[in-house]
Amino acid sequence: MNAHVLSTGNEVLLGDIVDTNSTFLCRQLKHSGVNVIKTSAVRDDMAALVREIRSIASAVDICVMTGGLGPTSDDLTAQALAKAAGVKIELDTAALSSMKTYFDKRGFDLTPANEKQAMLPIGATFMENLQGTAPGFSMTINKCRFFCMPGVSKEMHRMFDLKVRPQLYEMTGHAGEIQVIQLMVFGLPESRAEQALSGFAEQFPSIHLGFRIRFPMIEVKLSRLKEKALDSRKDPDGTQALTQAKLWVMEKIGSNVISDQGLTLAQEVGRLLVKRGQTLSVAESCTGGLVAHLVTDVPGASDYFLFSATTYANSVKEAILKVSPETLENNGAVDETTALEMATGVRAAGGSDWAVSTTGIAGPTGGSEEKPVGTVCIGVAGPLGAHSQRFMLDRGDRQRNKQLFAAMALDVLRRELVKN
Amino acid sequence: MNAHVLSTGNEVLLGDIVDTNSTFLCRQLKHSGVNVIKTSAVRDDMAALVREIRSIASAVDICVMTGGLGPTSDDLTAQALAKAAGVKIELDTAALSSMKTYFDKRGFDLTPANEKQAMLPIGATFMENLQGTAPGFSMTINKCRFFCMPGVSKEMHRMFDLKVRPQLYEMTGHAGEIQVIQLMVFGLPESRAEQALSGFAEQFPSIHLGFRIRFPMIEVKLSRLKEKALDSRKDPDGTQALTQAKLWVMEKIGSNVISDQGLTLAQEVGRLLVKRGQTLSVAESCTGGLVAHLVTDVPGASDYFLFSATTYANSVKEAILKVSPETLENNGAVDETTALEMATGVRAAGGSDWAVSTTGIAGPTGGSEEKPVGTVCIGVAGPLGAHSQRFMLDRGDRQRNKQLFAAMALDVLRRELVKN
Repeated sequence: MNAHVLSTGNEVLLGDIVDTNSTFLCRQLKHSGVNVIKTSAVRDDMAALVREIRSIASAVDICVMTGGLGPTSDDLTAQALAKAAGVKIELDTAALSSMKTYFDKRGFDLTPANEKQAMLPIGATFMENLQGTAPGFSMTINKCRFFCMPGVSKEMHRMFDLKVRPQLYEMTGHAGEIQVIQLMVFGLPESRAEQALSGFAEQFPSIHLGFRIRFPMIEVKLSRLKEKALDSRKDPDGTQALTQAKLWVMEKIGSNVISDQGLTLAQEVGRLLVKRGQTLSVAESCTGGLVAHLVTDVPGASDYFLFSATTYANSVKEAILKVSPETLENNGAVDETTALEMATGVRAAGGSDWAVSTTGIAGPTGGSEEKPVGTVCIGVAGPLGAHSQRFMLDRGDRQRNKQLFAAMALDVLRRELVKN
Repeated sequence: MNAHVLSTGNEVLLGDIVDTNSTFLCRQLKHSGVNVIKTSAVRDDMAALVREIRSIASAVDICVMTGGLGPTSDDLTAQALAKAAGVKIELDTAALSSMKTYFDKRGFDLTPANEKQAMLPIGATFMENLQGTAPGFSMTINKCRFFCMPGVSKEMHRMFDLKVRPQLYEMTGHAGEIQVIQLMVFGLPESRAEQALSGFAEQFPSIHLGFRIRFPMIEVKLSRLKEKALDSRKDPDGTQALTQAKLWVMEKIGSNVISDQGLTLAQEVGRLLVKRGQTLSVAESCTGGLVAHLVTDVPGASDYFLFSATTYANSVKEAILKVSPETLENNGAVDETTALEMATGVRAAGGSDWAVSTTGIAGPTGGSEEKPVGTVCIGVAGPLGAHSQRFMLDRGDRQRNKQLFAAMALDVLRRELVKN
């Protein structure tokens, strides 16, 4: 089945908002076994909307549409669908009573403008909005089924999950489940990952391989749809094929896969620490608090994270982390020995089992010939000792360098945790 | 002049990437005086592409198109344009020599696949790519001028700036300059900001008012185009009208405007510190390093940022920040007195002029009836003394709570810096 994803609203065409609704819907439709062949965005203009709806109705089986369901005069979706279908609009009592319930709960009164929102094309089927007031609806024009949802992402996601997806499964004959293996990859550029995995499609024609950059990581996603009519003799739910595909991928890029459960570096580090019942402290210079921020973004981090010191000033490196003045004098702040002393120092100060440290040059200034922007030294201290390493990781931009340095520090720590 | 923005590429329709190119182009076209009336994305399919190009050529004056200029067999843009225009493609020597220069510089050889990229429709005008290899081009079909650019954002942005924008100015008669005032707003929900500024369009019809959420801030943008033919007697470049509009806005929401230069909270705090020649330390609990991370994302932060301690464990609050065990015992970690002692403690440890501290409950767990998730205490210590405050700021999500707490801490510090 072919589909069109249609966005309405001047704010998209003025470039004021990024149309992430369409991206979401394209992905969801693909996962529901529907083939999106086109997306478009048109203005809040009756003639333009009717023209677009008519053209879509004669081209595809399904149209998923967002926006234009609000109470104001530029919300035209219901009227435009009615006009394109050659029917009138009328008050939908189910839509009205659903809105009334929503307002009552919050102690608001319905206004005439809200009542306008319950005017749907004759023949349309109301779809309830559990996250807001704008009612959704579906209707058929020619042989195309239109699903009209609000433009507010939160409302639209919920309505899609509860009201649209089940109908799509019905229409496409899919069993309504998709199996996914989500591999998080660090330290391999996307182009090299793609190259390493070329030939996948020939090996595993029934499995979709997707890449998504989540800088500084890449997410490699293996997915397949469970089909109602799948041959059930050999591999009834397709699990076996998916597992084989995963093994094939791991053989090619396994050493860069940090999690096969979709975990970020900070989540994986947290998981390993919880498993061991151990704790962590962090000493940062160039990453400026980002390592601690990433670690503490994980719910439950307080179970293992004790302390982090971001020491820009050398005086603080000496006073808090007990880095020796001689090391700083002889080697400078960006140096393997300094990183080592920072790690052991913060481990002692925090009283933790593990510690990781970063010191480097994120740029744009501060680089030298010997230590250019992108230089970073990372130290790890643990129950069995400490060590440190130097890396060159310039991405030409302070923020990205910080991200990359922090990820590298977490990856060095992760590899240590896995070993010990 | 009316325009269409066209994206090609299966990755958009599979939902693998968000089409930020179109958002960028819509905004740039608006700023160039062009009216975008539709955007669309189509597959890498010859028939679909030709159909779309023909339909666009008969509907608008300008089409800006991205993608499909690479060396592989699914890169069809040049061929599709040629087919839609009814012309052949031929080797463009300027395009080829530009690619050759790009490759030579990097020590690579041109492959036959690359040579294919230099095959442009007869009558097309080559546009140089300074960021990559794929050559761009422009050509006219019917009365519509097509500008075809690579899909890689960095390459496209540069090509748009250097090659497309000047031609657009030529076509629209705009003077090629847009004036913008960028107000950064904190502590006011978007809906309330919009409400407070309703009536703007009637007051200032020549000025565009835009909102953009940059959580936890909002950017309010006032812009107007300088027109070549602008009446020059009274307000030759429109500066006066823009200044008046800004004053009108400041009157409505001024107390929440943290910068009229588009600065983030961390940038504004940095600017104020540099201006005063003063330094900063940070003590964090619930924000987990995020305040330090935001402060150090600003290039040049090492001129004023000395030290930050993220103290999850109470033992570290005592050892490093000298928070008294009695305070922690009697009041708990999330408390105004604790926040105050953290701020004064980190100010002393870092040896800085200023310090700010956070202690609170970001969630999802850790809340109590007395101190629910969203509670945060913020302390500030400076040359003239210290104080602290409690806030309730729950956004129902650990990451967003951290963002909001950190912004509030920077805002409390900023207000203190402005006062002193």
